[in-house]
Amino acid sequence: MKRLIAFSILLVAFFSAQAQDTKLPPPVKTGGKPFMETVAARHSERAYVKREMPPQMLSSLLWTANGFNRDGKRTVATGWNKQEMSLYVVLDDGAYFYDAHAHKLKLVAKGDFKKALGQPEVTNNAALSIVMVADLNKSSIDNARIGTGGTSQSIYLFAASEGLGTVARGSFKGAELGKALKLNSKQAITLVQPVGFLK
Amino acid sequence: MKRLIAFSILLVAFFSAQAQDTKLPPPVKTGGKPFMETVAARHSERAYVKREMPPQMLSSLLWTANGFNRDGKRTVATGWNKQEMSLYVVLDDGAYFYDAHAHKLKLVAKGDFKKALGQPEVTNNAALSIVMVADLNKSSIDNARIGTGGTSQSIYLFAASEGLGTVARGSFKGAELGKALKLNSKQAITLVQPVGFLK
Repeated sequence: MKRLIAFSILLVAFFSAQAQDTKLPPPVKTGGKPFMETVAARHSERAYVKREMPPQMLSSLLWTANGFNRDGKRTVATGWNKQEMSLYVVLDDGAYFYDAHAHKLKLVAKGDFKKALGQPEVTNNAALSIVMVADLNKSSIDNARIGTGGTSQSIYLFAASEGLGTVARGSFKGAELGKALKLNSKQAITLVQPVGFLK
Repeated sequence: MKRLIAFSILLVAFFSAQAQDTKLPPPVKTGGKPFMETVAARHSERAYVKREMPPQMLSSLLWTANGFNRDGKRTVATGWNKQEMSLYVVLDDGAYFYDAHAHKLKLVAKGDFKKALGQPEVTNNAALSIVMVADLNKSSIDNARIGTGGTSQSIYLFAASEGLGTVARGSFKGAELGKALKLNSKQAITLVQPVGFLK
């Protein structure tokens, strides 16, 4: 009987988690500004107009930032292709893990975790914040920081191409944010980057 | 008399250095592949066909990698805009410093320094190698690594847009290369990235 209850709890937990995951549409791999115009337009923006990001745009953004664009390899390099970097997404209703293999958002926890991101004047009006997380079981923090910079630049360029605003932020509340994202002791947050709509 | 000789030596040194510096043409800030196609095409290439890079392409590459695209600010973010990252370029005939303000290549030393870059099978057929250097008087090595990743990704995307090949390389001969580039004790090489033509 105890086993049956335990199994039922597991089953309910599994399906309720599944129900809250969000399958992303495939990224759009065409279009955008010509590359050199994208570079010319690249800059930091901290003032956003609150709007939800459409799933198609979110899909292309996350794929650009750290998706797979060819056989088992990502849009951003990591040293010796260790792929130690993962992205988490903080939306108004919860924190999600970007599963780049399945190209979906997996719910980590429901709730408003924006406070842990710090700088509410920047964070609160963003459509979302991307949190870059290194798995130190896979590679060193030094390599992870280089991978982080690559993802950050890709987000900057995506924003420039799409007319969105973004800024790389180092001043987050690490312990609080790590707890919200349920990180383990070998996972380190390297950077936070909000993306938002401009006036 | 001694003063006159010293002054003459300075004068000669100044003009011979000037003569070897290379003013780059302005970068082309339009054109290239659409951004999303650029991301889709981004990948590493290690086999190149030896060819010299035309000055116009070199100019746009370096500007994309770490130039100024707006008032005093660069195409790649650094923490608190400390701009601790500099680029050096190793060509077959010498090592150069990319002066992003003047948008020119300043000769550091004549000679063939490709050996210090390591991996001759990758390096020797590249048109050039970009060496990323952090000034630790300006910022921390941790921040510099994130800036390094941004520059590396911009080079990857420029290569994808232009149909060139590139690969980020961590296995360079640090001491030898630092000597070739005449770096001081507060400058650290963070990454080397060759760029070359494909078959």
